[in-house]
Amino acid sequence: MTAPLPLLDLNADLGEGYGDWSMGDDTAMLEVVTTANIACGGHAGDGRTMRAASRAAAAHGVTITAHVAYPDLGGFGRRFLDIAPADLTDQVVVQVGALQAMARAEGAQVRGVKPHGALYNALAHHGAQAAAVVRAVQELGDLPLVVAPGAVAVETAQEAGIAVVLEGFADRAYLPDGTLTPRGTPGAVLTDPAEVAAQALSIATAHGVRTADGSWVDLPVRSLCLHGDTPGAVELARTVRSHLEEAGVHLGAAL
Amino acid sequence: MTAPLPLLDLNADLGEGYGDWSMGDDTAMLEVVTTANIACGGHAGDGRTMRAASRAAAAHGVTITAHVAYPDLGGFGRRFLDIAPADLTDQVVVQVGALQAMARAEGAQVRGVKPHGALYNALAHHGAQAAAVVRAVQELGDLPLVVAPGAVAVETAQEAGIAVVLEGFADRAYLPDGTLTPRGTPGAVLTDPAEVAAQALSIATAHGVRTADGSWVDLPVRSLCLHGDTPGAVELARTVRSHLEEAGVHLGAAL
Amino acid sequence: MTAPLPLLDLNADLGEGYGDWSMGDDTAMLEVVTTANIACGGHAGDGRTMRAASRAAAAHGVTITAHVAYPDLGGFGRRFLDIAPADLTDQVVVQVGALQAMARAEGAQVRGVKPHGALYNALAHHGAQAAAVVRAVQELGDLPLVVAPGAVAVETAQEAGIAVVLEGFADRAYLPDGTLTPRGTPGAVLTDPAEVAAQALSIATAHGVRTADGSWVDLPVRSLCLHGDTPGAVELARTVRSHLEEAGVHLGAAL
Amino acid sequence: MTAPLPLLDLNADLGEGYGDWSMGDDTAMLEVVTTANIACGGHAGDGRTMRAASRAAAAHGVTITAHVAYPDLGGFGRRFLDIAPADLTDQVVVQVGALQAMARAEGAQVRGVKPHGALYNALAHHGAQAAAVVRAVQELGDLPLVVAPGAVAVETAQEAGIAVVLEGFADRAYLPDGTLTPRGTPGAVLTDPAEVAAQALSIATAHGVRTADGSWVDLPVRSLCLHGDTPGAVELARTVRSHLEEAGVHLGAAL
Repeated sequence: MTAPLPLLDLNADLGEGYGDWSMGDDTAMLEVVTTANIACGGHAGDGRTMRAASRAAAAHGVTITAHVAYPDLGGFGRRFLDIAPADLTDQVVVQVGALQAMARAEGAQVRGVKPHGALYNALAHHGAQAAAVVRAVQELGDLPLVVAPGAVAVETAQEAGIAVVLEGFADRAYLPDGTLTPRGTPGAVLTDPAEVAAQALSIATAHGVRTADGSWVDLPVRSLCLHGDTPGAVELARTVRSHLEEAGVHLGAAL
Repeated sequence: MTAPLPLLDLNADLGEGYGDWSMGDDTAMLEVVTTANIACGGHAGDGRTMRAASRAAAAHGVTITAHVAYPDLGGFGRRFLDIAPADLTDQVVVQVGALQAMARAEGAQVRGVKPHGALYNALAHHGAQAAAVVRAVQELGDLPLVVAPGAVAVETAQEAGIAVVLEGFADRAYLPDGTLTPRGTPGAVLTDPAEVAAQALSIATAHGVRTADGSWVDLPVRSLCLHGDTPGAVELARTVRSHLEEAGVHLGAAL
Repeated sequence: MTAPLPLLDLNADLGEGYGDWSMGDDTAMLEVVTTANIACGGHAGDGRTMRAASRAAAAHGVTITAHVAYPDLGGFGRRFLDIAPADLTDQVVVQVGALQAMARAEGAQVRGVKPHGALYNALAHHGAQAAAVVRAVQELGDLPLVVAPGAVAVETAQEAGIAVVLEGFADRAYLPDGTLTPRGTPGAVLTDPAEVAAQALSIATAHGVRTADGSWVDLPVRSLCLHGDTPGAVELARTVRSHLEEAGVHLGAAL
Repeated sequence: MTAPLPLLDLNADLGEGYGDWSMGDDTAMLEVVTTANIACGGHAGDGRTMRAASRAAAAHGVTITAHVAYPDLGGFGRRFLDIAPADLTDQVVVQVGALQAMARAEGAQVRGVKPHGALYNALAHHGAQAAAVVRAVQELGDLPLVVAPGAVAVETAQEAGIAVVLEGFADRAYLPDGTLTPRGTPGAVLTDPAEVAAQALSIATAHGVRTADGSWVDLPVRSLCLHGDTPGAVELARTVRSHLEEAGVHLGAAL
């Protein structure tokens, strides 16, 4: 390869506690990623966790995005909610606003918006909810939106003049149409470190992956999502990063 | 009186619904007041109510303050919560931040912070909670704080360089020391419209009130708080405003 | 008609406040209905409202059902939530249990379970959620379930040996297949008192209604649902009851 | 000692998760204790956690108490809330009711009520809140109440004919008056396994402990509270149990 490799962003979800409950190892993941998606009260997160995550991200020089979600603490934002689009817009505005104020209090800034969980999935195909989220980021001053390639929200955002950051997954199998193999399907989640690292490298350098049936899928993504919610996941994230660095991939925030 | 009367602010609590529940007649009160204290998720308020109240306040040219509160939707913020000061600071930051984003989305701005209910009362005497709120408004960019004369928060705010707007009540009896007669005491709440209007006028023009025992209390306040949570309260608020206007008191936001 | 008319139940939703928020006129509706569906913390309701509604229902000799819902106070249980069936079962058990304890404290008993809002709608067609609710009422000691005729939950309940109370609506238009005309469709909600009373009477005495296209739909229901969330709705409910009484329909709880 | 040792109960807090968040190692603690205090929605706990904890407790033959708390998920019930006594009664009734229904669904029963955190502390001295909790347990059918020796709630309960289970702590230092040394005071929390085991044994066999100043405090308790919220705490709990068993203390639920 003679052309210079593009800058690749590594992102992970942080600040996903609530009150006295915590989740994941934020400190470890801040050593691995270049962007932190910080929960802002929808699926997780309160003032205390937003403070801690914003402060830690700022200290590590890690970029912050607002990890917006359905208002569903009891379900961790992982179940579809048929919320009215206007209410969804309002939710995104106040969730991001809360984190913006806290990030500023910690000398940092929210540089983008990443939908979480079931809302992230809905943005792939639910036109009205996608439009609702896009309207919110417009109202928030045209913040960029992090989404999956092929999501209906991509086109909606671009038509609205909103910048889009496309994101891929190192540890999830892809279908030939570029969508993720649904969880629950055998092989949907990759757990072998060598396999995960290889997929990360393929995305980073060849901008695509080979699927289970042998076909090639283009994945023109600027960011790779890593998980840190179990000790094994953190270790896997470290492995991915070191493989990318050894391969000469330059890492840096997308926003 | 030959000296020009100072500008007096009239404020009321707005946007105190949650989901499908509403409280008070916001539309009516916006015709009466010059400042709206908008609930921002502590004792009441969600994205939808913050949107509606911000939009209506902006349309009426009414100034917005963030009506911050203990995180206690189930108790409407009316019961003391022994929250850790650091957690209280974080709560105030994220509550105000949520409203700031929504106000901006509606072309308006949050111009001050007014504590609600039991938190308002705590700021009269609870040094640690007062300091926590003052720290939050500093972090929010030195937003002014609305409090009662004599509250411990007044001194704390001033030492921190935070502007303070002192506030009085037209419909509450005062004790000789300048504090409110506790609710539950006979005569604590004034309900006779003539009496309420007279107290408003006394505060507006003579900057003080005569207490039940005949002594005089100075009340150097810039704002009068009116209530709108019952039809009778709205009518009373209208009466107060018309008496003030007839007496030549100039009304205008304090912030 | 020479055969004696069967006993018809009139039910309405009560106790739908939360904290300091209230909804509807419970006192008025208790004069009209024979069964009260009391909110138990899903879409509305806390200890205070469950106490007040249970006490009032007991004082009026009105039967109590538990008005279970998705855990969604912010959306009043009116939006579909793709909750895992096992979690839904657990929710129904704890919501009903809370109300059972409170009803007992007030000398009353929960005699059935009625799903609310979007959950009620889901039980018409969502097999997994229907099965989840049925499993919960089995665990609760085979409490009867109130549902719409034709709902998938009817068969599921009957197969599980759970008694079912079928319910109709006086103020909603029906489609030829016996389902409700979706809200939003013109004519979906009947507002003319004469028309509503006529439909109630048709359901009570002829056990069916004529639809907009002139076809007849059998509605073998034991209970009629009335609304009380607006002053107009309360008045309409009173009108329905007086028409039914004048026509000699005997009213009484279904459970 | 020639008289037979009385049966000593070991209790711990279980089911303290919420949604996707968990806390402590319930499985490990069920091997150690004879009573499980299960969170029921006040400071922690939802349908899913109540199910899991009830099922596990039943499987281990461990007695269940309802771990009632202020309604404060965000603060884990650890901060005083000046809730109106009537509202506190209602909270306790619905929290216990929720757990009762779930325990029954799992073939078990709630055999007592143990207040959690700040509410537990309030019951030591806050007469109105103590009376409110006692009224709730009366309404629930005279369930026994677990409290600290010397708490104002002890007398209130006994006057109301409510059975009381007195409880001591193996890992907390006591003051000469029999109350706990406040957290934050040096030496308030014992961490040395030998010291903790010795205090447990002293309570179990001599029914009292020697305080830091050398004075003796009688602790006529039927139950010892153990903690399991950290790996170290679980290990410590195991140590206490094995020391008690080696000393011939008979263990068994108090209810």
